[in-house]
This record gives sequence, C-alpha cells and structure tokens, in this order.
Amino acid sequence: MLDTAEAFEGVSTRSVKKVPALRGRVVVNLFYEDSTRTRTSFTLAAQRLSADVIDFSIQGSSVSKGEDLRDTVRNIEAMGVDLIVCRHPASGAPHLIARNVSCSVINAGDGRHEHPTQGLLDIYTMRQIKGRVEGLKVAIVGDVANSRVARSNLYGLTKLGAEVTFVGPPTLVPGTFARLGARIRHDFDEVIGEFDVINMLRIQKERISSNVFPSLEEYSRLFGLTNERMKRAKPDVVVMHPGPVNRGIEMSAEVADGPHSAILRQVTNGLAVRMAVLFLCTQAGQVQ
Amino acid sequence: MLDTAEAFEGVSTRSVKKVPALRGRVVVNLFYEDSTRTRTSFTLAAQRLSADVIDFSIQGSSVSKGEDLRDTVRNIEAMGVDLIVCRHPASGAPHLIARNVSCSVINAGDGRHEHPTQGLLDIYTMRQIKGRVEGLKVAIVGDVANSRVARSNLYGLTKLGAEVTFVGPPTLVPGTFARLGARIRHDFDEVIGEFDVINMLRIQKERISSNVFPSLEEYSRLFGLTNERMKRAKPDVVVMHPGPVNRGIEMSAEVADGPHSAILRQVTNGLAVRMAVLFLCTQAGQVQ
Amino acid sequence: MLDTAEAFEGVSTRSVKKVPALRGRVVVNLFYEDSTRTRTSFTLAAQRLSADVIDFSIQGSSVSKGEDLRDTVRNIEAMGVDLIVCRHPASGAPHLIARNVSCSVINAGDGRHEHPTQGLLDIYTMRQIKGRVEGLKVAIVGDVANSRVARSNLYGLTKLGAEVTFVGPPTLVPGTFARLGARIRHDFDEVIGEFDVINMLRIQKERISSNVFPSLEEYSRLFGLTNERMKRAKPDVVVMHPGPVNRGIEMSAEVADGPHSAILRQVTNGLAVRMAVLFLCTQAGQVQ
Repeated sequence: MLDTAEAFEGVSTRSVKKVPALRGRVVVNLFYEDSTRTRTSFTLAAQRLSADVIDFSIQGSSVSKGEDLRDTVRNIEAMGVDLIVCRHPASGAPHLIARNVSCSVINAGDGRHEHPTQGLLDIYTMRQIKGRVEGLKVAIVGDVANSRVARSNLYGLTKLGAEVTFVGPPTLVPGTFARLGARIRHDFDEVIGEFDVINMLRIQKERISSNVFPSLEEYSRLFGLTNERMKRAKPDVVVMHPGPVNRGIEMSAEVADGPHSAILRQVTNGLAVRMAVLFLCTQAGQVQ
Repeated sequence: MLDTAEAFEGVSTRSVKKVPALRGRVVVNLFYEDSTRTRTSFTLAAQRLSADVIDFSIQGSSVSKGEDLRDTVRNIEAMGVDLIVCRHPASGAPHLIARNVSCSVINAGDGRHEHPTQGLLDIYTMRQIKGRVEGLKVAIVGDVANSRVARSNLYGLTKLGAEVTFVGPPTLVPGTFARLGARIRHDFDEVIGEFDVINMLRIQKERISSNVFPSLEEYSRLFGLTNERMKRAKPDVVVMHPGPVNRGIEMSAEVADGPHSAILRQVTNGLAVRMAVLFLCTQAGQVQ
Repeated sequence: MLDTAEAFEGVSTRSVKKVPALRGRVVVNLFYEDSTRTRTSFTLAAQRLSADVIDFSIQGSSVSKGEDLRDTVRNIEAMGVDLIVCRHPASGAPHLIARNVSCSVINAGDGRHEHPTQGLLDIYTMRQIKGRVEGLKVAIVGDVANSRVARSNLYGLTKLGAEVTFVGPPTLVPGTFARLGARIRHDFDEVIGEFDVINMLRIQKERISSNVFPSLEEYSRLFGLTNERMKRAKPDVVVMHPGPVNRGIEMSAEVADGPHSAILRQVTNGLAVRMAVLFLCTQAGQVQ
C-alpha cells in the first residue's frame, strides 16, 4: 500500500489532478460521526481516481443499531456501489458491514478501535522523511487509551519493524497496553531524547471533565511539546499530529508550525494513501 | 419506460458503471423532505448517465409556501438546469413547479399523492420476476389511506392490466378507495392465497399515536407477513416492500430476508428505472 | 472579467453544458454562512468548467476564530486544492485566508464588506442590456449600510465610469457614505426619473426589530417599487435585485415579474461571471 501510494503521490501536484483508474466506480461515504476532514480527504482521493462519490448522510444523531446498519448497507450495495467508506462510533462496525456486503468496506475510524488509513498515512510520512520504517523509534504521546490512531499506528509500525513507545499519564496510558507490543513510559522528559518520530495524539477536550487527568494545564506542562521541551529531543526528530492541533495544549504554535513539524505533509500524504487504498480495494484479486 | 429501464439495467453491473447519455446535463435534487435513500438512488442514476448532480438543500424545516417555491424553481431554472427532481410534503407541489419552469420536473414523492418512480420500479420488478404485468393479482397491504406508493402502484398496475386489491383495516383502507379501481379487503388471511404479488406498505410509526389503529401488536397480528401466514400464500408469491422494513411489524425478518422477498431487487431496479426516467425526460420530443 | 464571462455565456445554453477548461482542478466551497443560491451558482459554474467541487461544511453554527480559520485553510490547501470559494460572516475573512494559502481564494461574501461576484454579475447584466457601463446612472436602494452588495456594485460601477446614487432613509443610507464616491438621496420619488438602472437591495427582515426603520409598511411605502412608482421612472429603466425578493416589500410582484425586471437574467449571468472568475483565477499568470 505504501508503494502504491508513492506511485499516486505525483497526481496531486499536477495541474490535471486526475487519473482514470476508477472511472465509473462508485464510492459511498457512510459517516455516522461528523468528520469533515477525513471525509473530504477520501472524497478528493476518489475524485482524483475519477470515481463517483456520494455522501450517504445519516439523519440526526441517532446511532443505528446493528439490525438497521445491516439493512442500510445491504440497500447501499443493492444500488451497485463498489466501495463503502465507513466512520462509526461503535468499534467493529466496519467489520459487521463487511460481513454483510460483498463490495469493499474501508474503515475510516470506528470507536476506540482503529483508524487504519490514518495509521498508514502516518507511517507513509515517517518513511518518506526518514527513508525507512524498520528500526525507527516512535513515541505516541497522549490519550492512548481512547485513541484509534494510536492502535493503528502501533499495529502498522511494529509489523514493519519500528519500536513504539506509548507516553502519557498512567490514567491515559495503562500498563496493560504493553501487551499490545508497545513500551510504556509516563515521564516524557526522561525519554524524549530517544525518538526519531514523536506522534502527538489529539486531546478530546470534552473528555477532560472526567477525572482521568487533573487539568489541561497540568497535562500540557508534563506532555505538551514546547520549544523548551524540544531542546531535549533529537535534532532531526519529526513531530506529527493527526490534527486539528489544540495549540497550547498538545504543542505550542511554534512547534506546530516549526521546522520539525510534518503535520501538513501528513494531510497531503493522506490523499495519496487513500488513493492507494481505494485503488487496491477495487483490484481485490491482485492484492494479498 | 419499463423497456428503456431494461436497456439500462446492465450498466449497473459493469465495472465501469457509466454511459455518456446525459453528459453536460444538470440534475438538481430539490428535496423539501429528508429522503436519503430516494435522493441517493436518483443521484447514482444521474451519475451513471454522466450528468452533473447538485443537491439544492432547503434550510431548516420550514416548508416553502407557493410563492417562494415558484421563485426558488425559477431561480434554479435560470441557472441552466435540465431536470428538477422534487420531493415535497405538499401534494401537487411538483405540478405547481412544472407549470412555472420549462425544464423537466420529476416527482420524487409529493405528500399523500404520488411517488411515480417507486410505482414504476415496483411494476418493473413484478414484470422482471413474473414475465408480465397483465393479469397479475397484486395485493397492496397496510396504510393505503396515507400512501403515495399505494396510489402510484395502483395507477400503473391497472393501466397495464393487473388486478389490484387494497388490504388493511377499514381505518387505513377506506371503502371509498374502490372508486380508484381497486378491490378492497379487510381480512388478509381470507384472501392471501389469491395473490401473485404482495406489496407491503411501510407503517409510519409516528402515525400510530393517532387512533387509526389500536396498537402495533394488533396490526402486526392481523396484517404482518410471518412464515406462518406465508403458508397460506401461493408457493411462488413475490413479497415486496418500499423499505426500510420495520422488521416484526410489516413482516418478520425471516420473510424479509427469505426466498420470496424481492426487496433488494427493488432497490437495484430503482436505479435502472430512474435512469430511464431521467433519460426519457431529456428526450421529451421523442417520448409519448 | 466581463469579456471572459461573455465568452462563457453560450456554454450554459448548449445541451452539453461543459467545457474542459478546469478538468482535474479542485474547487472547495468553504461556507461559514448558509447560502444555497450562491453556493449552487459557484458549484454549477465549476462543474461547467469540468472542475471537481467539494463542499467543506462547517459543523454547527459556531464561527471559527482566526487561528482555527488559518489551520482549516492550510489543511484544505495541503489536500491539493486549486481554488477556495469562501463565504464568511466576518468582514475580511477571505483576505486573511488569502494571506495564509498559495491557492486562489474567491470571496463569496464577507460580512458587510464585499460580495464581488454579485457586483460583477450586476454590472455584467447592466452592460448586456444597456450596451455599456460608462455614463449609466444607477440607483442602489435600501439597506446600504449593511449591504456588501451595495459596496461591490459601487466600487465596480464607479471604476467603469457609471454614476451611483444610494437611496434610502438616513438610518440605512448614512451621509458618510458619500465619501465612498456615491451620491446620497433620501427621497426616492424625487430622483427616480433619473436612473437607467435601479438595483433594489434585499431587506433582511431579521434586522427590522431594531429601530433603524419604524416598520416594513413605512419602508415599503417610501422605497418599495410598485407599478405606481414605476410610472415616474424612465420608460427603459432596468430593475434589478440580488434575490430572493420579498414581494410586497422591496417591490411588488408585478414589478418583479414585469418587463423591466432583469432579476432572472442576473441569476443566469451569475453562472457566466463565476465561470470567468474561476477560470481567470487558475490562469493567474495571464490576469492583471
């Protein structure tokens, strides 16, 4: 997938940003959670492949129950759709869908479970900048317990031979996560100098009211990336974030816009990676 | 229209689901009521014909009055639109629109009046499975009084020589409907064995609170299609439903997903029928 | 721009309403205020040039602050977008955006500041009907103080040599506006006979509750265009309105639909003008 994404990367910088690879194919965005950025990225990727894209908006905020979801996707499939891109608040929803349709289903984020294309675009960006994934030391910092981005990064990175460290307070980075194959550290300053890549997770402000961490100020003081803290990091460290950044919390504006930041490059790479995923899913016979 | 739909049916099963018939034509979806499924079906049909499609969303839930509706559609037409697909809660709204513009107007459901493309796709599906429409005995079961689907089925089916029976409690199937050309029956079990096709209407749960029928349970017990009740039906009966099914009310899950059900085939056929309608409306000179 | 629009005018009357000028280019509609009509006009214009169009909808009604807006547009740009069409309640927002991205930014209305494509389509319509702009006497009538349409008309018209008079009660047409280059008049009947074009601004009913004018009735009696008042106007006067008209307030239905009205022609011309603007913005090297 990373190699195919590389082949597509050039399409987005041409003046005619289009290849005919998926002409006449139909992609449905089935989003049960708002996500303008991810949906836009998938839509642009599909258009760049000449596919037709349609948003199947789910009215209101009521989350469909299993039975309804099954009916909905069987109906979508019956309309002659090739690919369903699904975002759902329930972990596993895309897998339930995939068991009920024969078209391709792409997980665009399911609950706290996975966000595979975000994981892929993060890894793609690391490989692009560092020239390799194997042997990279990668920190994933923040609310790991609730993060599908953290899980998708971990699975992809360890498969490709990188070493992953989860960093955060014990309430957000439980020791049990070591079983997934990651090292666990609670003191960021102690280990920050080891990493080739630091991937900062987004803090969901709406979760702060719970008692998992005392205050945004304390979190930011201990784990926020500032120019001061960056002095302890490797001089060629790459800073990443799935966006949008809460400036002043996960990192300062200086770091977000600074020379180490790969944040906008991640966004750009998201297009190439999603083009690759859409393309390969329609070529199922040829993929392993 | 049915014959043209047949010609388009194959397009949706190709890998390149596109013909250039309406390239450079513009279709506007003007929906004053939510209807993700019907809107999606029309949009996919238009895209399959290479037309450009745009949703003209009506803000808020305020239903436009006549004067505003006239202004709105004259404006849409002035933008160089070829086809307006309109869903409106007021019976007759598409006819008001058609009198005020010179482009084609397609009724995608107006109040309790008609839903012509649903009627056409139902009839298309009957013809596809049974090989003919003439002489078919068709039951339309449920809330006939409030159903635009029932009316559009009735008009099309009787025109093509089928015999239609409306089945339901007297509050939902008034005797006066016999004047429209349908037979009226209130005891489903007594007549179920006669029909080649049983088309079950959707129960609008929000109407139940009114006193037109005592309870969902009683309705379901007398008119719901269960495996038990299906034993009285013809062995080759076709079961249809405009969707989405309230499983356990209009019919059991076993019947909805069972061998007699044509429900997903209706969805698939909806695309071919709507392609035919969009196509023929742009060829007005050649249609009779 | 007016000449380029003229070249594009014919595209909208063909059966294949499409030229390949912007094939493979991406236009993002970034609307922080609802505006179905303007958004639809831009979308159809972009489709007519074969561009891909995507709506970047902003959730909820919360207006982004400067910092977030900057982040949002940098992200959009990083996805490989060519043109951002922006509507924003804050005056100057499109200029803030333009300073932060290198792609083209088109102002589709910002606060009380400007609505340049509306100004251009108004001027285009005057030139189309009158054969020239220079020397035309144009009245702009109504809530000038709050109108971005008034400002964009004024700047374009005076640049091209027309004479602009702002007409309305002193609360809506402050004397200080004379400094912008317009004549100010408060008595419509006294001057109505002088004008070649009368451009009526839309009254925002939601502003009436404030004490800027006593009542809709009084406003309509003094400034509304009725057949009676039209008798004092030049026989070949052109009546314009950015739409939608509040019939019975800014003008009577007879005038809106009458022989002097250019209102629907403005809508049609909006397509050609927006095609020209989109096209020229992608040819930046060639524009002055």
